Amino acid sequence: MRDCTGRREFITSLTKALGTSVFLAAPIISSANNLLAEKKTFTVRQIINLFIKEVAGAPFDNTVDTLKSGNPDQKVTGIVTSMFASLEVIQKAISLGANFIIAHEPAFYNHQDETAWLENDKVYRYKADLLQKHNIAVWRNHDYIHRHKPDGVQTGLVAALGWQKYYNPENRNRFILPPTTLKALIALMKEKLGIQMVRYIGDLSQSCQRVLFMPGASGGRSHIEQMGKEQPDVLICGEAPEWETVEYVRDARTKGDKLSLVLLGHIPSEEPGSEWLVNWLKPKLPGVKVTHVPARNPLNFI
Amino acid sequence: MRDCTGRREFITSLTKALGTSVFLAAPIISSANNLLAEKKTFTVRQIINLFIKEVAGAPFDNTVDTLKSGNPDQKVTGIVTSMFASLEVIQKAISLGANFIIAHEPAFYNHQDETAWLENDKVYRYKADLLQKHNIAVWRNHDYIHRHKPDGVQTGLVAALGWQKYYNPENRNRFILPPTTLKALIALMKEKLGIQMVRYIGDLSQSCQRVLFMPGASGGRSHIEQMGKEQPDVLICGEAPEWETVEYVRDARTKGDKLSLVLLGHIPSEEPGSEWLVNWLKPKLPGVKVTHVPARNPLNFI
Repeated sequence: MRDCTGRREFITSLTKALGTSVFLAAPIISSANNLLAEKKTFTVRQIINLFIKEVAGAPFDNTVDTLKSGNPDQKVTGIVTSMFASLEVIQKAISLGANFIIAHEPAFYNHQDETAWLENDKVYRYKADLLQKHNIAVWRNHDYIHRHKPDGVQTGLVAALGWQKYYNPENRNRFILPPTTLKALIALMKEKLGIQMVRYIGDLSQSCQRVLFMPGASGGRSHIEQMGKEQPDVLICGEAPEWETVEYVRDARTKGDKLSLVLLGHIPSEEPGSEWLVNWLKPKLPGVKVTHVPARNPLNFI
Repeated sequence: MRDCTGRREFITSLTKALGTSVFLAAPIISSANNLLAEKKTFTVRQIINLFIKEVAGAPFDNTVDTLKSGNPDQKVTGIVTSMFASLEVIQKAISLGANFIIAHEPAFYNHQDETAWLENDKVYRYKADLLQKHNIAVWRNHDYIHRHKPDGVQTGLVAALGWQKYYNPENRNRFILPPTTLKALIALMKEKLGIQMVRYIGDLSQSCQRVLFMPGASGGRSHIEQMGKEQPDVLICGEAPEWETVEYVRDARTKGDKLSLVLLGHIPSEEPGSEWLVNWLKPKLPGVKVTHVPARNPLNFI
């Protein structure tokens, strides 16, 4: 899909076609500049397709990665990536002059972004109207970024943690670390991911090597199945149902297993994925301002 | 269902039948004692029915309140109530000589207590085998205790908090308090419910009067629909999906609403319900030892 590529590839093609030693006469340069100027604008659809075409098996028939607001054919004035298209992030996008938000999670408080039940809700109404008033397109990039090879979220996290040498994209959730205490592991997470406080189960002096790292909210069954399969020393995840994952880990410890659990919070556990996406998009969209606006964890502790 | 009533009611009936001034001859007393001795034992089924018959519309066709282990016809040697039949709670029941656990939440890490997917899981296996080895019956009392009039969990909580005068069983989640700061409200929760730390969104100096109190894990949609309907100053709940309830509250605040959120943790938010159940059962089951074993919150903060 050549129309989605940018200035750099256009120039490369042009140079190849003309040959490096050919003198470019003024009329040709002028024509090329005009073409370049045209190429600088992209529609929402083009940018979505730019990402999707990199994912095996895409587009998916069943996916939550749909356009939540805006028009796929609108010209993009700027892109904001974030974990959530929260009202704060939308306001920030408006102030940046960006009309396209790529968020990792739902816009309207449920996985499928169903809105019929919210029609009379004042918070939903305010948000939907604000998006409409400013012609802001919101696209969720969740299934695609996770199915990208390598997983964009996990790659962003690995970079943030400096865990490249422990990372195997073929088994993206398993990390075999040099022995480290649970306390040191938690301290690393807090420092590298900017986390104020975590919830955990375990003995802080316990040595951890086998780490099952499942950012986000994979759900209790997924956590439990992976723990059964991987037999980790510790599961680190974003959020987990207390009555599923948490009770399982508690029971495993009572049984005698050396298993710990760390709950980072959903947003800090995946935010580096939105930063990864900025770096992925930028070279492909010359002239388009692409900004990562952290959603930041809204929860405080007392 | 008279066979479920205990010694006290039996004696009352006997006294009424014979008249208070009648001298009870030795053979009659002996016969009555034998009857009493027989009456002291109850089956699991009898105790379940004792509760269910108090609930309007029961038994329910669709309910998660099923027997998770044990035999409904086994004689009960003692009862333990708790939020979870965790391995710790099971071990405690064994040490107390109790073979019937009434838990508020699932035994096997998912709402429906489906176990086919856990057949080869070592933690599940260990727990199921331990229950079988000691012939421990586990019954979940979730739907019934909430549908009991008044809701047993909410009544237990109201008592623990000293909120009787603010409680209307017809609208069990809404409390109109004298103006109090969010900070003071959280301090009260922590003190009365024995909570180490809570997560929250809001301004601690904000005055709260309208409290929407939804213990447990009602789910994001339920939280959001109730917030829309009740327009509270604060939602207090057990656990909530971060990407649903929490994001909604964040957006409401950005919009300008005076809305706060307090997450107590699932277990501490409902544990008083298991204590309420002990007090409900005891007078109806003379001679049966009924003990509340707190499940306690397994999560720590660092």
